[in-house]
Amino acid sequence: MNSSMIRVILGHVLRIEAAFMLLPCIIALIYGEREGYTYLIVAGACALTGVLMSVIKKPSDTALYLKEGCVATALSWIMLSLFGALPFCLTGEIPSYVDSLFETISGFTTTGASILNDVESLSYTSLFWRSFTHWIGGMGVLVFLLAIIPLSGGSNINLMRAESPGPSVGKLVPKIKSSARILYVIYFIMTIAEMGLLTIGGMKPFHAITLSMGTAGTGGFGVLNSSIASYSPYCQWVITVFMILFGVNFNAFYFILIGKVRKFFEVEEVRWYLGIILAAILMVSINIQGVYGSFSETVRNAAFQVASIITTTGYSTTDFNVWPMFSKVILVVLMFIGACAGSTGGGIKVSRIVIMLKTVKKELNNYSHPKSIKKIMFEKKAVEHEVLRAINVYLITFIIVFTSSLTLLSFENHDFSTTFTAVAATINNIGPGLNMVGPTGNFAFWSIPSKFVLMIDMLAGRLELFPLLILFSPKVLKELVIDSFTKKRK
Amino acid sequence: MNSSMIRVILGHVLRIEAAFMLLPCIIALIYGEREGYTYLIVAGACALTGVLMSVIKKPSDTALYLKEGCVATALSWIMLSLFGALPFCLTGEIPSYVDSLFETISGFTTTGASILNDVESLSYTSLFWRSFTHWIGGMGVLVFLLAIIPLSGGSNINLMRAESPGPSVGKLVPKIKSSARILYVIYFIMTIAEMGLLTIGGMKPFHAITLSMGTAGTGGFGVLNSSIASYSPYCQWVITVFMILFGVNFNAFYFILIGKVRKFFEVEEVRWYLGIILAAILMVSINIQGVYGSFSETVRNAAFQVASIITTTGYSTTDFNVWPMFSKVILVVLMFIGACAGSTGGGIKVSRIVIMLKTVKKELNNYSHPKSIKKIMFEKKAVEHEVLRAINVYLITFIIVFTSSLTLLSFENHDFSTTFTAVAATINNIGPGLNMVGPTGNFAFWSIPSKFVLMIDMLAGRLELFPLLILFSPKVLKELVIDSFTKKRK
Repeated sequence: MNSSMIRVILGHVLRIEAAFMLLPCIIALIYGEREGYTYLIVAGACALTGVLMSVIKKPSDTALYLKEGCVATALSWIMLSLFGALPFCLTGEIPSYVDSLFETISGFTTTGASILNDVESLSYTSLFWRSFTHWIGGMGVLVFLLAIIPLSGGSNINLMRAESPGPSVGKLVPKIKSSARILYVIYFIMTIAEMGLLTIGGMKPFHAITLSMGTAGTGGFGVLNSSIASYSPYCQWVITVFMILFGVNFNAFYFILIGKVRKFFEVEEVRWYLGIILAAILMVSINIQGVYGSFSETVRNAAFQVASIITTTGYSTTDFNVWPMFSKVILVVLMFIGACAGSTGGGIKVSRIVIMLKTVKKELNNYSHPKSIKKIMFEKKAVEHEVLRAINVYLITFIIVFTSSLTLLSFENHDFSTTFTAVAATINNIGPGLNMVGPTGNFAFWSIPSKFVLMIDMLAGRLELFPLLILFSPKVLKELVIDSFTKKRK
Repeated sequence: MNSSMIRVILGHVLRIEAAFMLLPCIIALIYGEREGYTYLIVAGACALTGVLMSVIKKPSDTALYLKEGCVATALSWIMLSLFGALPFCLTGEIPSYVDSLFETISGFTTTGASILNDVESLSYTSLFWRSFTHWIGGMGVLVFLLAIIPLSGGSNINLMRAESPGPSVGKLVPKIKSSARILYVIYFIMTIAEMGLLTIGGMKPFHAITLSMGTAGTGGFGVLNSSIASYSPYCQWVITVFMILFGVNFNAFYFILIGKVRKFFEVEEVRWYLGIILAAILMVSINIQGVYGSFSETVRNAAFQVASIITTTGYSTTDFNVWPMFSKVILVVLMFIGACAGSTGGGIKVSRIVIMLKTVKKELNNYSHPKSIKKIMFEKKAVEHEVLRAINVYLITFIIVFTSSLTLLSFENHDFSTTFTAVAATINNIGPGLNMVGPTGNFAFWSIPSKFVLMIDMLAGRLELFPLLILFSPKVLKELVIDSFTKKRK
């Protein structure tokens, strides 16, 4: 295990976090809030620790293998959250450190599940930091790292692979650094575009900024207790459209960026994704007839909630807990489908679901034509055996993690719907579930052990299971401990 | 499509059903019940239809390919149920034919989900038939057919493959006919043994006979409204042990039959199966401390319910709906695990689950040793790629059928727990679920469309999905219709 290289990466990540934490300080300056000092101090601590970790001693070997890439990624996210939680706790706004950590992990993993009863009591500074964690977590901090720091070694694709969602990681351009930059450029432009459109619609700039960051990361933290319900229909529609856009595979946006607009609509995953969204909006709209006064209100609420859940954002404009069970089941199914691979959204991902459906179709065909050698086609290419295998293993692992979490949470003796959707909403990085964890509820009532289970689910969901499982495997933990021990003795 | 051969098989199946239906007639004679006449008439109708179908015109080609084996199996089970439901309806004991069909499919598929409020109001004749359908369905009617009728053609393994549960079908001995006979001999002996032990314990012979048939098929229909709760602890323990035994892979019993007792305990699937049962009993026993008066009552209830659910029998000695959520989640997890392959139980099957777990373990290892070529071992043999593929496709198909059913049932707007466990309890052939479909509830309240969804789930679960899906595929349906049409014109 190349633990000195992992240490260097962690150091870089902390220094980036320190830089990121200066932004809420600016917000504090603008609004004249004392909380800014806390953020400044924590930023200093991050920077110092980061420098100590990454500068003091250069690693002799800079190669990072797949296992090390996973470990580095998992540890980066954990450390990012451990430090990122400090300001909430030190300002006294979230007195318990465990709750602060829950909120921060929920932020970075773009889940949006909150332990806060009253969001509006937070300072602007902390509200900004809370939404900003979504923005950082959406595209990924390591992708950001790769975009700005020239890590030598050449196996950095393993970092990107561990952090980026989807069954296979495609570099947009041959160089990783350029790929990472292009991704962040698209991400930044789209976020700014949403901020602009919301401000034009009369939204206060602070709300426009924070909500756009929450949309971009498909996070879901709002700045009002009523989430998005109290904004104008125009703003709700803008957010709906942008949630859907941020759930699109970013590779598809790259086609637009390089002028091949037609190719955007030829991406199979995007077509399926938009098809599922349209079908879901249609079904829910019909099913919730009569719940709202007008046709336009019905469609708007259906579209908003469908977009929010399938992209795993988690904003809400209405309490879908009171919808009929059919619509609720549709939402639960969308929770698991999730957004496109290579987007900022969570869930199992549309491409995996589509390939799974095609596997079954092929199997049924094989009963009639046992000697057929037709391959499964996706995005006009034959799906490689290795990809199929990886998807299957992912599905099985997902079920195992899901079931284990469900069993552990059931110790608290809440109803089945609450327990089931609490796991579904965290492992798929959505935010709200049903019943007690529904749009009008929150996650504060869970005990500390259960909160840790949910935190692990959020991280596991964001990093697509394996990086976290590998970090927690006894073998790797042992290696890490022994490595640092033998280092000291040298 | 060799539809004349399929017709012949269906004819055989109907004639066997006619013979089976004479048994309730004997019960009617003993108890002097008029219902016997109805059974006699229906038996006559079955026999006549069966003879017309299978004798009139011999098929020129007796070969059965995999697709045809599946279609024949699916159609056999549907026809068996359509005719088997007639007596319930014609005696007026279950006035609605749809309800009668539900009860019969639940019987043959060894589910045990009932639409009856008051089981005790049924005649002895119908109670016997109801339990007897479990016994027939448990080992399979086509396996019975293969055991007694010399079907020429040589591809009968496709019938057995379609009807027998598990990822791969092993013939016990080279000849299918002998394998089928051995299975039924073991099945018969064990059923008789249970009847004997229950009678020794003071149970009325009628109860001992019906309950043993229900245990053997891992069905779950009882003859009292309180299921098994009112019998003596001794009888409850006997049933517990036999439920567990009937959930064991019958290949393992064959080792005992040929004197290789040690080999029985070396079967990996059996070891896992027993391990899971013990662990579950332990966890539930600890969790339900205080619900019952004494330690022995606690363990007895825990063991009974765990054995009943994992073997997918569905008997109950207590209303586990009032247990703490942890125990309920354990039971829900056991519902999906199910019994051993090659047993009479349903669910996903222990061997599939174990192989899936090993897949994940191998994947985690591969991160550390990417070039490792270790194979997944099960039952001391490397698991073939084709078996792995089949298990994965099975899992995906299972999830698709489950999700579709859940969505369709949710139209009725019952709570999530009821809807979710209604599907889980039928597709896994268990019987009771939670809440409204819990041990003290029943399935009568569902609308007719929902009942059909649940019936399809029961059949899909018993036949392990594909035979039914293939039958319902548009292509096969078209072929069947065209075939019968062109026949007529010849």
